[in-house]
Amino acid sequence: MTLLRSLFLLVAIVFPVGAAQSAEPLPSWNDGPTKEAIKAFVQKVTDKNGADYVPPADRIAVFDNDGNLWAEKPVYFQLLFAIDRVKALAPEHPEWKNKQPFKAAIEGDMKALAASGEKGLLELITASHAGMSTEDFEAVVMKWVETAKHPRFERKYIELVYQPMLELLDYLRANGFATYIVSGGGIEFVRAWSEPIYGIPPGQVVGSSIKTEYKIVDGKPTIMRLPEVNFINDKAGKPVGINQHIGKRPIFASGNSDGDFEMLEWTTAGNDPRFGLILHHTDADREYAYDRDSHVGRLDRALDQAAQNGWVVIDMSKDWKQIFPAKDQ
Amino acid sequence: MTLLRSLFLLVAIVFPVGAAQSAEPLPSWNDGPTKEAIKAFVQKVTDKNGADYVPPADRIAVFDNDGNLWAEKPVYFQLLFAIDRVKALAPEHPEWKNKQPFKAAIEGDMKALAASGEKGLLELITASHAGMSTEDFEAVVMKWVETAKHPRFERKYIELVYQPMLELLDYLRANGFATYIVSGGGIEFVRAWSEPIYGIPPGQVVGSSIKTEYKIVDGKPTIMRLPEVNFINDKAGKPVGINQHIGKRPIFASGNSDGDFEMLEWTTAGNDPRFGLILHHTDADREYAYDRDSHVGRLDRALDQAAQNGWVVIDMSKDWKQIFPAKDQ
Repeated sequence: MTLLRSLFLLVAIVFPVGAAQSAEPLPSWNDGPTKEAIKAFVQKVTDKNGADYVPPADRIAVFDNDGNLWAEKPVYFQLLFAIDRVKALAPEHPEWKNKQPFKAAIEGDMKALAASGEKGLLELITASHAGMSTEDFEAVVMKWVETAKHPRFERKYIELVYQPMLELLDYLRANGFATYIVSGGGIEFVRAWSEPIYGIPPGQVVGSSIKTEYKIVDGKPTIMRLPEVNFINDKAGKPVGINQHIGKRPIFASGNSDGDFEMLEWTTAGNDPRFGLILHHTDADREYAYDRDSHVGRLDRALDQAAQNGWVVIDMSKDWKQIFPAKDQ
Repeated sequence: MTLLRSLFLLVAIVFPVGAAQSAEPLPSWNDGPTKEAIKAFVQKVTDKNGADYVPPADRIAVFDNDGNLWAEKPVYFQLLFAIDRVKALAPEHPEWKNKQPFKAAIEGDMKALAASGEKGLLELITASHAGMSTEDFEAVVMKWVETAKHPRFERKYIELVYQPMLELLDYLRANGFATYIVSGGGIEFVRAWSEPIYGIPPGQVVGSSIKTEYKIVDGKPTIMRLPEVNFINDKAGKPVGINQHIGKRPIFASGNSDGDFEMLEWTTAGNDPRFGLILHHTDADREYAYDRDSHVGRLDRALDQAAQNGWVVIDMSKDWKQIFPAKDQ
C-alpha cells in the first residue's frame, strides 16, 4: 500500500479536496437560477427552525460519475482503461488477435468494438478486470489513471473532473451531507481513486460489480476477481444499489443521462424536501455538447420529464464559469 | 416515517448510544488481559508518534451481530421473527397447515423445523421476508422488536444486546474508528434498528440479503423484496461482503463463531497492527455456555486457531461484569 499511498498523496496535492471554503461557495458556478436553487435547497434543509429541516443523518446526496463528476467522451473512460488493459495482456493471449471484441480493442477499431454490442463489451470488461486480486486491480487502475492521457485534452483522466462539481461536493459536505457516488461504472475502478479526487471514501461508492471470491493464495488471504457479472448498477438498478449500500433514500440526486432516471425519480418522489439535478452537456467548445442522440450518456427521457418532476437542469455552457480544474493548480 | 422515528427516539432513550464516556472506558469489562489487550491496541493505532499509527480513514472495525452484539439462543432471533411472521400470515395461506416447514413454524415445533434443514429455513425466510416493500418490511421488523419477548429473559430482543459490546463500540468510535456490523443475518432486518441500538447507521450494516426490484407501485416509486436469495454473508462470504460494502480491509474484527473465521483471518493477516476478538460464551448462569457442539453459533475451528493467530478470546463469565443493559436504565 505504500506506493498507492504515495500516489494518493500526490493526487491530493494536485486536487486539494475540502480546500478552504471561500466566503462564497460554488465559485465556479455563474450566478443565476441553477446556483440559487442549489443554495436555497441546502439552506432550507439545514435550517433547524424551518419546516423542511432534515437531520444530518438523513442528508444523503448521490452523484452519478461518468459525464457527471468527470467527462465521458469520446467513450466511458473505463472502456479506454479496458482497451489499454487488453493491449497490455495481449502477448499472453495470442488467440485474441483473431477474436472479437479483443481484435478490435488491440487494433483500436472503435467501430468494430461498438458493433460487438453489449455482449462484446461485457466480455472485454470481464477479461480485462478479472483474474487478479482486488489489491492488484487497484494498483493497475492507479497506474493507469496516473499515466494515461485523454486524446483531446491531453490531460490525465482524473484531471478531467468537473471543478464546479468538486465545489458542489465540498459545499454539501460542509453542510452536513454524506456524499455518495452511484455509478454505472465498476465499483472497484472508481474506488481506486475516489477518495483523493472527490473526497469520497470507498465505502461511499456504489457501482456495477463482478463477482469476487475469498481464498488463500500462496498462503495469503485474498479476494480474487472472477470473470462473471455480479450487479449492473444502472437505470432501475441504481435505486436497488443505493438501497443495498446506503439503506436510506437520498434527498439529493445528481445525474446526467437516462441511466440516472430511476435514481432521480426515487430520490425526488414525495412531498418532503428533495432535490434532483441534471447536468446537460451544452458546451462543445470547452467540453462536449450532446443529449438525445448520444451513444454515451444519452439524455432524452430525463430531459423531457425534468420540468414536471421539478428537476433542476444545469446548462453547462451558461452555468459553469470553468469546466476542469486549472492546469497549474 | 413518523411512527418509526418516534419508536427510534423511544429506543434511543432506553439505550443512550454514545452516552458520556466515563473517565474509565469499558466500565462493564473486568480488569484483566482481555480489556488490557483492547486498550493497548487502540492506544497503539491512535498514537500519532508511534510506528503503528493508523489514520482515522483506515480505522475500520467490523462486528458480527448474532451471539456477538446480542444473544442468539435458543435460536437466532431473526428465525423467531420469521416464525412469528409466518404465524401472522398463516390465515392468508391455508395451504401452509399441511406443508413443511410452515406447519412446524405455525405449531412451534422446533425439532421438525430443524429437520427441514437449510432448504426449509431458506423457504421460511423468503416466504416471511419478501413480497413487500422495503419500507413495509422495516415497519414490520420495528413492530416485532418493540413487542416480542425472549422466552427465558422475558425482555425485548433489542434489550438482549451486550452492554460490554455497546461500550466497546462507543470506545472505538470515540477513538476515530468507523464501526460496521457484518452479520450472517439479513441486512434489512438488522438495519431497521441498528442506528438507535448500536449507533450504527444502515449504510454501515453488511449482511445477507434477498434480491430486490425497483418498480412503480400504485404510482409510487418502491423497492420490492423478492423471494430469492441475493447473497449469503457468512463464512467466506464475510470478506466478500466487507469488500463489496466497505472497500477496505478492516483492522479490527470481532466475532463469536466459526462463521466469523474468514472475517477474522482476512482482517488479521499481515504484520501491520490488526486485532481479532472472539467472544466465548462461558456463562450458563447469566447468559449461555456453548461452543463446539452448538447448533447455533458453533465455535470450534476459530477457538482452536485463536492462539496461533493472536486472536484475543473473551471469556464471558470472567471478563464481563454485566451482560445486558440494566433493566431500569
